Amino acid sequence: MANITKKVSWSSRGDESGSPWEGTPLLNGSEQPSVSRQLSGGRSIFQIGRLSTVDLEDEITAEEDSRGRPKEIPHNEKLLSLKYESLDYDNIENQLFLEEERRMSFGGFRCLEISRWVVCGLIGFLTGLVACCIDIVVEEMAGLKYKVIKENIVKSTEAGGLSISLILWAVLNCAFVMVGAIMVACFEPIAGGSGIPQIKCYLNGVKIPRVVRLKTLVVKVLGVMCSVVGGLAVGKEGPMIHSGAVIAAGVSQGRSTSLKRDFKMFEYFRRDTEKRDFVSAGAAAGVSAAFGAPVGGVLFSLEEGASFWNQMLTWRIFFASMISTFTLNFFLSIYHHKPGDLSNPGLINFGRFESEIMSYNLYEIPLFIAMGALGGFLGALFNVLNYWLTIFRIRYVHRPFLQVIEAMLVAAVTVAVSFTMIYFSTDCQPLGPEHSEEYPLQLFCADGEYNSMAKIFFNTPERSVRSLFHSQPGTYNPLTLGLFTLTYFLLACWTYGLSVSAGVFIPSLLIGAAWGRLCGILLASITSSGSIWADPGKYALIGAAAQLGGIVRMTLSLTVIMVEATGNVTYGLPIMLVLMTAKIVGDYFQEGLYDIHIKLQSVPFLHWEAPGTSHWLTAREVMSSPVTCLNRIEKVGTIVDILSDTSTNHNGFPVVVKVSHNNEPAKLCGLILRSQLIVLLKHKVFVELARSRLNQRKLQLKDFRDAYPRFPPIQSIHVSQDERECMMDLTEFMNPTPYTVPLDTSLPRVFKLFRALGLRHLVVADDENRVSVCLCYDDLARYHLGKHGLEELHLAQT
Amino acid sequence: MANITKKVSWSSRGDESGSPWEGTPLLNGSEQPSVSRQLSGGRSIFQIGRLSTVDLEDEITAEEDSRGRPKEIPHNEKLLSLKYESLDYDNIENQLFLEEERRMSFGGFRCLEISRWVVCGLIGFLTGLVACCIDIVVEEMAGLKYKVIKENIVKSTEAGGLSISLILWAVLNCAFVMVGAIMVACFEPIAGGSGIPQIKCYLNGVKIPRVVRLKTLVVKVLGVMCSVVGGLAVGKEGPMIHSGAVIAAGVSQGRSTSLKRDFKMFEYFRRDTEKRDFVSAGAAAGVSAAFGAPVGGVLFSLEEGASFWNQMLTWRIFFASMISTFTLNFFLSIYHHKPGDLSNPGLINFGRFESEIMSYNLYEIPLFIAMGALGGFLGALFNVLNYWLTIFRIRYVHRPFLQVIEAMLVAAVTVAVSFTMIYFSTDCQPLGPEHSEEYPLQLFCADGEYNSMAKIFFNTPERSVRSLFHSQPGTYNPLTLGLFTLTYFLLACWTYGLSVSAGVFIPSLLIGAAWGRLCGILLASITSSGSIWADPGKYALIGAAAQLGGIVRMTLSLTVIMVEATGNVTYGLPIMLVLMTAKIVGDYFQEGLYDIHIKLQSVPFLHWEAPGTSHWLTAREVMSSPVTCLNRIEKVGTIVDILSDTSTNHNGFPVVVKVSHNNEPAKLCGLILRSQLIVLLKHKVFVELARSRLNQRKLQLKDFRDAYPRFPPIQSIHVSQDERECMMDLTEFMNPTPYTVPLDTSLPRVFKLFRALGLRHLVVADDENRVSVCLCYDDLARYHLGKHGLEELHLAQT
Repeated sequence: MANITKKVSWSSRGDESGSPWEGTPLLNGSEQPSVSRQLSGGRSIFQIGRLSTVDLEDEITAEEDSRGRPKEIPHNEKLLSLKYESLDYDNIENQLFLEEERRMSFGGFRCLEISRWVVCGLIGFLTGLVACCIDIVVEEMAGLKYKVIKENIVKSTEAGGLSISLILWAVLNCAFVMVGAIMVACFEPIAGGSGIPQIKCYLNGVKIPRVVRLKTLVVKVLGVMCSVVGGLAVGKEGPMIHSGAVIAAGVSQGRSTSLKRDFKMFEYFRRDTEKRDFVSAGAAAGVSAAFGAPVGGVLFSLEEGASFWNQMLTWRIFFASMISTFTLNFFLSIYHHKPGDLSNPGLINFGRFESEIMSYNLYEIPLFIAMGALGGFLGALFNVLNYWLTIFRIRYVHRPFLQVIEAMLVAAVTVAVSFTMIYFSTDCQPLGPEHSEEYPLQLFCADGEYNSMAKIFFNTPERSVRSLFHSQPGTYNPLTLGLFTLTYFLLACWTYGLSVSAGVFIPSLLIGAAWGRLCGILLASITSSGSIWADPGKYALIGAAAQLGGIVRMTLSLTVIMVEATGNVTYGLPIMLVLMTAKIVGDYFQEGLYDIHIKLQSVPFLHWEAPGTSHWLTAREVMSSPVTCLNRIEKVGTIVDILSDTSTNHNGFPVVVKVSHNNEPAKLCGLILRSQLIVLLKHKVFVELARSRLNQRKLQLKDFRDAYPRFPPIQSIHVSQDERECMMDLTEFMNPTPYTVPLDTSLPRVFKLFRALGLRHLVVADDENRVSVCLCYDDLARYHLGKHGLEELHLAQT
Repeated sequence: MANITKKVSWSSRGDESGSPWEGTPLLNGSEQPSVSRQLSGGRSIFQIGRLSTVDLEDEITAEEDSRGRPKEIPHNEKLLSLKYESLDYDNIENQLFLEEERRMSFGGFRCLEISRWVVCGLIGFLTGLVACCIDIVVEEMAGLKYKVIKENIVKSTEAGGLSISLILWAVLNCAFVMVGAIMVACFEPIAGGSGIPQIKCYLNGVKIPRVVRLKTLVVKVLGVMCSVVGGLAVGKEGPMIHSGAVIAAGVSQGRSTSLKRDFKMFEYFRRDTEKRDFVSAGAAAGVSAAFGAPVGGVLFSLEEGASFWNQMLTWRIFFASMISTFTLNFFLSIYHHKPGDLSNPGLINFGRFESEIMSYNLYEIPLFIAMGALGGFLGALFNVLNYWLTIFRIRYVHRPFLQVIEAMLVAAVTVAVSFTMIYFSTDCQPLGPEHSEEYPLQLFCADGEYNSMAKIFFNTPERSVRSLFHSQPGTYNPLTLGLFTLTYFLLACWTYGLSVSAGVFIPSLLIGAAWGRLCGILLASITSSGSIWADPGKYALIGAAAQLGGIVRMTLSLTVIMVEATGNVTYGLPIMLVLMTAKIVGDYFQEGLYDIHIKLQSVPFLHWEAPGTSHWLTAREVMSSPVTCLNRIEKVGTIVDILSDTSTNHNGFPVVVKVSHNNEPAKLCGLILRSQLIVLLKHKVFVELARSRLNQRKLQLKDFRDAYPRFPPIQSIHVSQDERECMMDLTEFMNPTPYTVPLDTSLPRVFKLFRALGLRHLVVADDENRVSVCLCYDDLARYHLGKHGLEELHLAQT
């Protein structure tokens, strides 16, 4: 709270320095050489002399700046990184844009609308196809692997020398994992993990570098195959969401910058607003393909991203989801030699829950809620352990070499643990006809029996989940389940965050299903047999939901995903209750896993609502760095200097116009983005002082679209000394109607505007329409609700 | 297009008259006595002399104004009525509000949040209870009625004189319908119909008078019982949505204005923003209770209402839905003597679709799509017929007496048609054991057989739907189904829009199920029997979805509702495809039924996006009537005059402050609402010219909350001549930070702001921060996309 108090005192000083550019609207680095970096905390440039405390950020960034890439990512939770740009979801309605829109006929808009649908259809189709590829490759390769190992084990069990089997198994797994880890660690680190936190950030409005590139997709897809085949405690579902998003970002732009191919299609969609919409559709298509849950996919996109609910967009998202699950279903049906049979809607299939056998009753609901609470607790425990582990990794395991070694170590330990568990297990079950294709291991069991522990460990996780849901009562004995839960919990926790491409959905479900089934068995044993309690599969389902909810905490979409994946609506109510309980209990201890990882990356993330107790903060106090304004007709040299100034690093600049009176301050007349200025500089749209235009070609919107989204850095643009003396007329290119708020607007009101409109910059103007402050995304993300009320984070250039 | 062109020429004139209040910020009726009504079309007050054309609105309103209530509702689709107020979903962040928020502690916000959950729980519980009551009463009374009539028919079939049975049936039905119609027509006309259009409007931001009152709820609930028991072609599901919304509006306010009871609870929620959120939850709870579809309910609320997706709100809506279906389920299980059996989640239960029997195959999908197209076409036909009928009703059937007569006529005709169909039907089917409780009529069939036509006609519509879905192949012969489809289509079309409380969901499903089953039977007959085509129940389901989609056109929520009601996710994909096709085909011909009725009521309704081709319209051109500003310290007399001026009828007034210089125009400093001014006048918060405050008590937010939502009209407030000379200080009460946009902001940009933030007024200011225009909700609703591009509607005081 001390911080906040300090803040208030600054803000009162801020009043005096309300418009620091009076007379001269420019505050760039060259004019103020002592201001090397504007520090966080609302200090205005007039307080430079008072910088007595040594700032944490300075220390950290000092050595990083020299090498370009940080040697150590700071894990201070009170910092927000400035390395992330935010996305602009507000249309830049400048003259060029409006001219284009006005030229467009009614039919033109129809065509655009149709091409949006076509793009969504394509996104769905390609996402489905990718999912299908992953599934088939994993199935085939895992099948091959388990067959080889099984044959070896069978041979070794008779002949002795099971240690050779263990080594074979470990070597095979480690090889796969190594390939996956090398790809991720050396080529594209952003493709690691499930990708869901990154997509959450993207939909929220933060651009994580390289997150929607083709290379990321390739590494992600190949990586997930390797890690699943490599037998890690991971799932292939999470990465599908990221894959869908990348596909969407690629298809919608009609070109690939990596492959240097431009298909000259969909040029209209080359801006943040449209691209975000398609990425939402892609993420939804990914969920839909992963879980066979088209509605769940739509809800996921909406829950995570869309601040502004738009009906047409929602339908397109829905369409993409639908096509995605359908494509997957169709191709899988051909692969399974049952063409036309559309009963495999997703990568994971929970199997059919028959309502008759598995109905639930009113008095079971408290039990479900208790399981939800347990799931919430276990989920929080998982998250806490993973949090510590991630901090350890950030500190000590940040070299690619170490990351690959760690991944291989985990793979080896996973094999060793599995093998030990199977080896010492005495849980033998009679072999039924239905186990024929699930690699049952006989090991030391009698003929016609198989090792029950091997059934869950020596299998792909998806099959294990299904087996826990649907196997006959008595398939597993409680000890097997208990041991499995414990070991798999620790393995999964260790695995998440490795430099491999992998998801956490399936491991969570598997842990939950194991202890859920255990609960069911215990319940059945303490009550009379033959009653409604008899089927442990039902409890496995509830346990899976509880554990997953406790770890990831997405209530609404998760409910729908679970309901769609089970294919049975009857379980809707208990699943909802369980997920809600898990969320409430889990939130009490620790945040959701994805939120933890977002926070650890210091991503500025806007939550749904402004912190409740923030009404006393006003727009003028929220500002973290002073505004830099440009004149409507500005000297090129000045613009270059401002853009080159690494200390401020502004992305949006209010444009002002000076009224002719001598002492009148300049009035706001527009807003221009760094990216636009860069394009203008690149194309040298200069006007000589004699007002003759140097570059005769009129700049088109197309020039901006061609440069999107990889605008060159200012350093790469050469401006000669002569050109520096030219002027640049921003009138046509600036957004002449930026949203503005008065100085006294409260934080929640500003927040609502940002959130609802997807803004990136908001100009705060005084009564006379003079620019006082320009708020950016990061300024708002700094405030959040901690355990003891409002907390303020600092911005750091890491 | 002529209209639009005219518009542009006005707007260019508008530039000159940019700020007509220079010097004097007041333009009220007394000062401009000749401006009796500001007309639509962007005419500024300076163009009065040019009003040469006789305006339609003038003619219509001339005689209405004298009587208070319009004698005839105009059905000109090019008009928007001014009688509807819009709701303010933007918080009025005035000093009082901010002080309260700032006083509130972190714990206070927690308490508020918890009470929101409690209110949502209550809403869900009460909605479920009401649904349960309706269901039980309808079941019992319909059972009694059919039993009496059946006994009579059985007697008459043997003894002759079936005409007596017909009369008995007709008299019973007419009596029920009469009671229902009298209640609606005489006591609360707004309770007629399904209520969904009204709730759509409310969620959109338009306040339909009396729509969420207790009286409306009572009439709605009793009315729907009467109309369903009265055998009309109606359902009891639609009204549940309206009921849920009324319950929510009531519970959340913690008082009943009708009953004059204030429970002193939830006073914080007494404003439009909070109330709307709860009404969303109520509507969702209603859907959830009606169809057993909690997720569908949430989506319905979001699709129809929430422009701003808020995660916490969505969860609360979800919670209310969940509690609602659970409550209904629980009480129905007790009623059905199976306590604890939670398999009746909604009023309508489609029964269990077994996936094994009813799986579909890839090559059936084109067939489903074709059925979707047929459904879209039939739906459009239904809507066109109903549109004509509604216009006829508006013209000729607007007296309560006539409305009751019409309702009774429909009831009698329904009975007569049903009876004739049953009488002449020769479709006899063997009586199975499962029909024991469904009133089978033997009539002229052999012993052990029953009349198949009677099975659908002589039954509640819900049971008929279920029977069409699940009866064995061969239960109905094609002729029966064809005749039934035809007659029921016409009956349902005639029935919708009667002055009875009734929904259109079930009749739509029933029509669709009938022709869908017919399709199934025909398909089975042209292909080899025993194949996958054999079960017509599947086609009945698809037909039902197609017909419903064709009539109401809510794609996403409807899909989820259908999937949840069938309890089987397998049908998700075909249902989606069918609903989309139905929507596309239907939209080609005619709008959805609810949209038609909203349009016929001339409700200003904001669609999701601004019309595509409207980028060339700017904020200054959109304005329909000149702005009226108030000074920050304003004379009471002036305020009273402005509020009393029926010609402008403004609800929001920009507040300006004059800068001391002599010729400087006044600057915008806030926005105040009519309702706030009324409260201020009522409490006489005046300052004498000598600056001594007359009324010593400081006005609290509580005073505004107590007056909410039924603010007295200005006529009821007496202000003496002395008081007229006093001044009123608006500083504390106005919203000091209203959203503003520059004059040149394009319509889509303004639209987005309105839609995303739920605004009611938007101040348009010029470069100098002077007020130029104040846009209101109606101004934006005037523009919509017609068949030939942008169309502009007119505003009329009807």
